[in-house]
Amino acid sequence: MKIGLDIMGGDYAPAEAIKGVRLFLEQSHDSNVHLVLIGNKDAAKPFMSELEPFQGRFTLVDAPEIIGMHEHPTKALKEKPNSSISMGFGMLLKGKVDVFMSAGNTGAMLVGSMYSVKAIEGVLRPTIASPIPRLDGKFNLLLDVGINADCKPEHLVQFAQLGSLYSKHVLGMENPRVALLNIGEEEGKGNLLAQSTYPLLKECQGINFVGNAEGRDVFTNKAEVIVCEGFAGNVMLKMAESLYDILAIQKGFKDPFLEDFNFEKYGGTPILGINAPVIIGHGISHALAFQNMIKVAEKIVSSNLTDLIKEQFKQQVDTPTEAANN
Amino acid sequence: MKIGLDIMGGDYAPAEAIKGVRLFLEQSHDSNVHLVLIGNKDAAKPFMSELEPFQGRFTLVDAPEIIGMHEHPTKALKEKPNSSISMGFGMLLKGKVDVFMSAGNTGAMLVGSMYSVKAIEGVLRPTIASPIPRLDGKFNLLLDVGINADCKPEHLVQFAQLGSLYSKHVLGMENPRVALLNIGEEEGKGNLLAQSTYPLLKECQGINFVGNAEGRDVFTNKAEVIVCEGFAGNVMLKMAESLYDILAIQKGFKDPFLEDFNFEKYGGTPILGINAPVIIGHGISHALAFQNMIKVAEKIVSSNLTDLIKEQFKQQVDTPTEAANN
Repeated sequence: MKIGLDIMGGDYAPAEAIKGVRLFLEQSHDSNVHLVLIGNKDAAKPFMSELEPFQGRFTLVDAPEIIGMHEHPTKALKEKPNSSISMGFGMLLKGKVDVFMSAGNTGAMLVGSMYSVKAIEGVLRPTIASPIPRLDGKFNLLLDVGINADCKPEHLVQFAQLGSLYSKHVLGMENPRVALLNIGEEEGKGNLLAQSTYPLLKECQGINFVGNAEGRDVFTNKAEVIVCEGFAGNVMLKMAESLYDILAIQKGFKDPFLEDFNFEKYGGTPILGINAPVIIGHGISHALAFQNMIKVAEKIVSSNLTDLIKEQFKQQVDTPTEAANN
Repeated sequence: MKIGLDIMGGDYAPAEAIKGVRLFLEQSHDSNVHLVLIGNKDAAKPFMSELEPFQGRFTLVDAPEIIGMHEHPTKALKEKPNSSISMGFGMLLKGKVDVFMSAGNTGAMLVGSMYSVKAIEGVLRPTIASPIPRLDGKFNLLLDVGINADCKPEHLVQFAQLGSLYSKHVLGMENPRVALLNIGEEEGKGNLLAQSTYPLLKECQGINFVGNAEGRDVFTNKAEVIVCEGFAGNVMLKMAESLYDILAIQKGFKDPFLEDFNFEKYGGTPILGINAPVIIGHGISHALAFQNMIKVAEKIVSSNLTDLIKEQFKQQVDTPTEAANN
C-alpha cells in the first residue's frame, strides 16, 4: 500500500513530519507499506538524513508550492496546483496513493475531500469523527465533530452507520454499540432533532443502537459510537481538549486516561463517507502525531474501510430505506 | 429575609439538608436571615437537635406529604398540596418566603416555577444557568444548561441579558463580558442559530458582547457569560461533571481548579426570568451543597436580582426592541 503524506503541513513541518515518518518506519517492518512523502524538496532537504536508514521504503515527491495555514482554501488549491495538498489529492484520485493526509490548511483539506474526492454515492454528508478516550483504555468515537453544524435526522443515521464501520474495522471494536447524544436517558427526550432521530436509529438495520447517551456517558463504555450534530460534537471535543491542556500540560497531572486526550496519540481526524481515505491532522502536530496518523492511515487502508462503506451505501441506494431517502 | 428550603428534597434528605442548614447558621451571623424549613416534621425530628443552638433563626413548617424523586411532576404537585414542594411554592407566591429551593423532584420544581411563579413579563423563556469554574478561581456562567433544548436567536439574546445580571449581581463580576458559544471565532461561523444570533447580540443594548467563545474557551477568562441553547449547554455541563467525577473522585487528583467543578461548591441551579427566586438543587446534594445553596439564595435575595430583571424587561416591553419581539 502507498500512504501519501503532506510533509509541509502543520506548524512544525517539515521537520516534525519527517521525524514522525522516521518513528513510523522504525517501528513498522511491513515492506508492503510504502510512504509517499509530498513536499518541497528544498525545504525537506535539511531533514532527509533522518530517513537515510530507510531507503526504498519511501519516495519523496517534489511539490514546489506551499499552501499556507491561513490561505483561502478554494483559491489556494486552484492557484497552486503544485502544492503538496493539490498534488496529494491529484495522486489520490489517480490511485498513486491509497490514502492522503496532511496537518496543513484544514479548509483546503476539506475542499479537496468534498469537491475532488467527493462523497460516496448514497452518503448525504461526509463527516469527521474523533476518538474519545474512555476509562478502560479503549476509544469511543464521537461524530460529527464540526463540519456538519446543522443536521437532519437522516444525517445522524448515516453518521451512526459510518461510525460503526470505523469503530469496528479501524478501532477494533466488536459489534460497536451506537448511542444518540442527548440530554435525557429515555426515548422522547431532547431537542427536536434528537426526538426525530431516535426512532430512525431504532429502525436502522446493521447498527447496534442502544439508546441515548448523555454528556456524562461519553467517557464510559456505554456506547462505542456516539452520534450528534457537529455543533455539540465540536464544543464537547474542544472543551475536552482544553481540559487536557489545563490538567495534563499546564498542571502536569500524570494519568493514562488523561494522557489519552492527547490528540497526538491518534494523530488525525478521518473524513468518513468520501471515495478515498483522507485524514486531517492538527496544525500543531509533532512527530508523535505524524507517526500515529500514518498508523491510522495504514489501518484504514488495510481494513478496506472505504470499500466497506461503499458496499453498505450501495445496498442502501439499491434498496432505499426510509432513513436514506427522507 | 426569609429563605425557604425544602428539607425533604434529595437522596440524603432530611439528614444532609438539616446538616447544611447548621453549617450555614454556624457561619452566618446575620440576624436578618431567617430560614424557613419546609418538610415532614416526623421525618425531620431525629435530626433537629443539630439546630438546637440556633433557636429563633429558623422555623420548621410541617409539610406532611412527600413528593418522591421519580413521581410525575404535575400530578404530584396537584395531588399532594401538603408536600414540601407544593407548600414551598405556595409560601413563595404569598410572600411568606423570599426564595424557595429544593434538591427534590426536578420536574416538580420546574413545573412550579413555570406555572405557579411564572415567567416575568417580557421574558420569552426562563432559563437555568450553571457556574463554570475557570483557572483564576472565579466562575463563568453557562446558560441555558438544559431546559430550552430548541432555541431561537431572540431566546439566546435574553439569556445573555439574564446571565449578565446574574453574573454581575450574584457572582460579583463587574461589567461581565458575554460570548456566544460557537464552533469558530469569527462572525458568520457556526450553525444557523449561532449565525442569526451573533448580529442580535452585537446590537443588544446593556450587555457587553465580545463575540464567539469556542468549547476550549469556557474555562478561561475570555467571557463571564456564555450563551447557548440548552442541548449544547447540557451536554457540556454533564461532560464536565463526569470528568470531575473521574479525575477528582475516582482518581483522587487534588487541585483547586478541579475542585471547583464540584457542584456542591455552588449548591444549586437558579431559574432565571421568573417572578420570584427559585433554586433547584442536585438530587445527590450533601450538607455542603445545601449550605452553599442557602448562601446563593441569600445573595440572590439581597441583590434584588428578580426586581432588577423585572426592571430590565419592563423597559423592553415598554420600548420594544427587535430582539424581544421577534
